[in-house]
Amino acid sequence: MLTLDKIYHAAFVLREIIRPTDIIEAPGISEKGKIFLKTENLQITGSFKVRGSYYKISRLSDEEKAKGVIACSAGNHAQGVALAATKSNIPSLICLPDGAPISKVEATKAYGAKVKLVPGVYDDAYKEALRLKEEHGYAFIHPFDDEDVIAGQGTIGLELLEQLPEVDAVVIPIGGGGLASGVAYALKALKPEIKVYGVQASGAACMLKSFHNKKIECLDCVNTIADGIAVKEPGKLTYELCGKYLDDIVSVTDEEISTAILKLIESRKLITEGAGAASVAAVMFDKLPIEGKNVVCILSGGNIDVTILSRVIKRGLLKTGRTHSLIIELTDKPGQLKAVSTIIADLGANVTSVRHDKVGEHLDINGCYLKIGMETRDFAHIEQIENALRKNGYNLI
Amino acid sequence: MLTLDKIYHAAFVLREIIRPTDIIEAPGISEKGKIFLKTENLQITGSFKVRGSYYKISRLSDEEKAKGVIACSAGNHAQGVALAATKSNIPSLICLPDGAPISKVEATKAYGAKVKLVPGVYDDAYKEALRLKEEHGYAFIHPFDDEDVIAGQGTIGLELLEQLPEVDAVVIPIGGGGLASGVAYALKALKPEIKVYGVQASGAACMLKSFHNKKIECLDCVNTIADGIAVKEPGKLTYELCGKYLDDIVSVTDEEISTAILKLIESRKLITEGAGAASVAAVMFDKLPIEGKNVVCILSGGNIDVTILSRVIKRGLLKTGRTHSLIIELTDKPGQLKAVSTIIADLGANVTSVRHDKVGEHLDINGCYLKIGMETRDFAHIEQIENALRKNGYNLI
Repeated sequence: MLTLDKIYHAAFVLREIIRPTDIIEAPGISEKGKIFLKTENLQITGSFKVRGSYYKISRLSDEEKAKGVIACSAGNHAQGVALAATKSNIPSLICLPDGAPISKVEATKAYGAKVKLVPGVYDDAYKEALRLKEEHGYAFIHPFDDEDVIAGQGTIGLELLEQLPEVDAVVIPIGGGGLASGVAYALKALKPEIKVYGVQASGAACMLKSFHNKKIECLDCVNTIADGIAVKEPGKLTYELCGKYLDDIVSVTDEEISTAILKLIESRKLITEGAGAASVAAVMFDKLPIEGKNVVCILSGGNIDVTILSRVIKRGLLKTGRTHSLIIELTDKPGQLKAVSTIIADLGANVTSVRHDKVGEHLDINGCYLKIGMETRDFAHIEQIENALRKNGYNLI
Repeated sequence: MLTLDKIYHAAFVLREIIRPTDIIEAPGISEKGKIFLKTENLQITGSFKVRGSYYKISRLSDEEKAKGVIACSAGNHAQGVALAATKSNIPSLICLPDGAPISKVEATKAYGAKVKLVPGVYDDAYKEALRLKEEHGYAFIHPFDDEDVIAGQGTIGLELLEQLPEVDAVVIPIGGGGLASGVAYALKALKPEIKVYGVQASGAACMLKSFHNKKIECLDCVNTIADGIAVKEPGKLTYELCGKYLDDIVSVTDEEISTAILKLIESRKLITEGAGAASVAAVMFDKLPIEGKNVVCILSGGNIDVTILSRVIKRGLLKTGRTHSLIIELTDKPGQLKAVSTIIADLGANVTSVRHDKVGEHLDINGCYLKIGMETRDFAHIEQIENALRKNGYNLI
């Protein structure tokens, strides 16, 4: 049974290896409450996961430790288990689907694990991990549905209360529910009047559905930018604990998560992955009753794929008028590109791409399209450029 | 005269408003020493500048305070002065060149300053600020060449020694030299055996040149991605202090700075601006004698323009094989695009752009070029795709 004692014990054990992550105030996220960030994205391995894994491993018998541990994950759990095992001086084997990003594979190896790439998807890797566990007697480290793992994650609740005793509400991203279970348990045990909210990605809201329907629900498929919480089915234990200790669970869209990622970059200089920013998205987009409260959003992790990060930023630039594409209809004669680019340059925009097409369904035989990509200052700047082009007789499409 | 007493006094005054920023260990930056980051990018206003401004303002007479302060800056100093003045309940006016990024203008306003956009470049804004100072009797807050400002920045040195007494060397980005002067003074006063190094951008290395030539040198122009340290001439006071208390000054290229920015994003989940990452770049690219030492790199700030951030990331993706463009020579007949895209899709790459050109100087009359942009896993993945295309008879250019 999960107890506060156990979570305190986990905190004691974890002192050897984790960093107590800072709580940072974040003005500008919401007008309603005073928002703080618990920066587990700055935890070693870039996510909270190492807490649960390390505590779990510390509880294994010497015999179990000698055989080593196995886990299945393409993400934060893999890195958490790998580092936890290495720090405990025991071997670890991580099964990953063979399409996993090379960066995650390399990171897992760098933390000292052996990696087995299994052809297929996550479920195939999971089956292979179970088979290897049976064959070799490795201890299997579950990513969330395990009391010791939950106790390890719960240490964040203790830390948080110590750092900000006046906290009124805590917002926690949920995938399988291990983090939320442990943290909510610790918080409610020590400060029963606190509100604890879970947040899921709307494309992977298994715990939300289970919570509201009051029974474990399994999703057929999951689809979200927040790969760290893309889970089809909650754990049995985590379902029980979340049902008992969370005040509510809400969901956020990928669009909202992306906006939160960019907000954290611009205003707080912090990189979060989709899962990590979900808590902030819930507050930014006003999904929770936080009027006048001191609210801590847990940033669960920062291991975002750089390709995805690049897309999030590109999209953010477009949505804030920092980049823009113009399509201009031209008569195809010499000097036209020069004339257009002079207008744009004089107004201080930076051209980043040019495309010139001669044929268009609706075009005059002498017409052509010019597509120009630019870096601009804001929407007003874009309007200024468009107006200048129109004033000079150009037709914008 | 700058004294340790003054820096301690500044630390006492600053307790009201700044956050003592975390020191975070950063394995993977250098094999040679143990590297730590002093995260002033996570300071309020996103840079250390608020320390100097706030302390300077606290030292003004009541009469001076009543008139308010003025400063000239397009960056971190503007935001530092604006917040410091607002927190001190006095008015502030910031002169900015009118081409300054809207994000910086808005941030400065958001911290409570009035902003005057001056037509022209930095020097014009500076002249206007001096004119207004004369006209209205505002106190001018210099960005670096001021003893109180230097004492404020120096508080980082005290904090750092408290957090990591076993530090052997500290690496500090230099623009005008205020940060380096204050921090080096504090460090050497308390721990004389410590090594303190300055880092400049190679495109704006005025202090480096002055330091080595043993006289103040003024650059004709500066050109660097690190706009926070793009300064043409060191201050008189800062030149004296850096000459006396720094062990050496080295420079880093924009390429090295970009690599450091990306490294900090990927491995430490921290956003730094060019100036902020310069200290890490110096260690990553082995410019300093740090063998076996505990080294603290000061991340001076995180206020990077998102457009520049986007470019840094894009370049990083290219350089690590995470994106790639292929140009394929095709015979222009139906089904070719399908055939090529099938090969690419089967190997798991994600196509992000396609361009098809019919005319090329060296092409057969029936030939065409297909340019395909893809997201790939790494260089091995790119090679795999290129080999598959070649095996199927396609000519890559």
